[in-house]
Amino acid sequence: MLGVLGGMGPLATADFFEKFVRLWPAEKDQDHPQVVIFSNPKIPDRVGPILGTSATSPLPALIESAKRLQEFGAQLLCMPCHTAHFWYPQIIQNLDVPFLHIADITCKEILHTGHDDKSKVGVLATRATLQAKIYQDRFSEYGVSLMQPDQVHMEQNVLPAIAAVKRNSMVEAGELLTNSIDRFVQQGVEVVVLACTELPIALEYVDSDTRTHCIDPTESLARACVNTLRQRPVK
Amino acid sequence: MLGVLGGMGPLATADFFEKFVRLWPAEKDQDHPQVVIFSNPKIPDRVGPILGTSATSPLPALIESAKRLQEFGAQLLCMPCHTAHFWYPQIIQNLDVPFLHIADITCKEILHTGHDDKSKVGVLATRATLQAKIYQDRFSEYGVSLMQPDQVHMEQNVLPAIAAVKRNSMVEAGELLTNSIDRFVQQGVEVVVLACTELPIALEYVDSDTRTHCIDPTESLARACVNTLRQRPVK
Repeated sequence: MLGVLGGMGPLATADFFEKFVRLWPAEKDQDHPQVVIFSNPKIPDRVGPILGTSATSPLPALIESAKRLQEFGAQLLCMPCHTAHFWYPQIIQNLDVPFLHIADITCKEILHTGHDDKSKVGVLATRATLQAKIYQDRFSEYGVSLMQPDQVHMEQNVLPAIAAVKRNSMVEAGELLTNSIDRFVQQGVEVVVLACTELPIALEYVDSDTRTHCIDPTESLARACVNTLRQRPVK
Repeated sequence: MLGVLGGMGPLATADFFEKFVRLWPAEKDQDHPQVVIFSNPKIPDRVGPILGTSATSPLPALIESAKRLQEFGAQLLCMPCHTAHFWYPQIIQNLDVPFLHIADITCKEILHTGHDDKSKVGVLATRATLQAKIYQDRFSEYGVSLMQPDQVHMEQNVLPAIAAVKRNSMVEAGELLTNSIDRFVQQGVEVVVLACTELPIALEYVDSDTRTHCIDPTESLARACVNTLRQRPVK
């Protein structure tokens, strides 16, 4: 049984679950695995504590939510939220079941699908995900350096796009995301990692040429969960 | 906390959850409610026991799954699968929390949104849902008689469309569903209830004119869950 620690945000959780189901090969219901999802949007904000603007840590709620999934019977966990992976080491210390790390998975998948340490990779994420170096640390192990959005790019495109998805304004989010990807591409970026689980939700509102540059970590995580549960190699 | 007894099928559960999240008014994650979803595709097939072609009842697994959601903390339950509502009376006998009935909700919504007992309503569903009279019983309370697909319609359109969704063949499902709705419309049906939670998933592959005739019970159920949790009146 797969356990999904979700609600950060809820639509990203729904997006993950749909991708997981669509990637699972099945002819009938009974071919699918059991999945328990705890969408817990009451987990305190993750951005504030990382940036030092809030003292309320989400860690106790993250650990408690993960443990409840484990007690329900989950044998493999994942969490479709990048920023919350700041607390990944402390969460897994409290668990007895494996927990797939979204950035680990995505980084390995990029490096195993035709890209190498010469590829110019850019990452679109919350300020907290960038500051916590959730992707940079992993890519640097492989000698890949990451481009990050500059301050104007963050304030005019990335953060408003994430906020637009959270309030269900998808057309607006799609325009902002398109601008954001195009800005990176103009700077020579070949691969854009949409490292906030809100962003891939707006991808269908991005035109298809721009879309070809994107990596969707939600889909990578879903694929890794499918392969792990099916005991297939995870790229 | 909302509890979703799902996995029948898993994609229908994902569809329900996405509709629920999109209908919930929110500016940020914390505005959303907690949701626990148990996608349990290992629940035995529902169609066989109703049609008398299988002796394995899904009832014990349905009750156990619902109880696990209740133990997790769910205060309101729902089940995005019409056929499984055949066992609704026995399931709720074993629970202490309210459980919204998908056909009750959909029937009330249709009758409160400009349709009356003169409207010609057709229902597309599995043979088991039709035989168990899950919709007919409710509509007849309001004096509305339901059109059902004839045998050719079932075998050529409805059942293949449901099977196509279950194996992720959406374009094929969309064509079959379009034919199915058009067949009803030619018979004078004004409102087509897509009374199998697989069918609305194919709606985006149905052309927009045909789509205007359809009622999506998954969306009606999601709306009723939103209104109940927000303590707003359910239509």
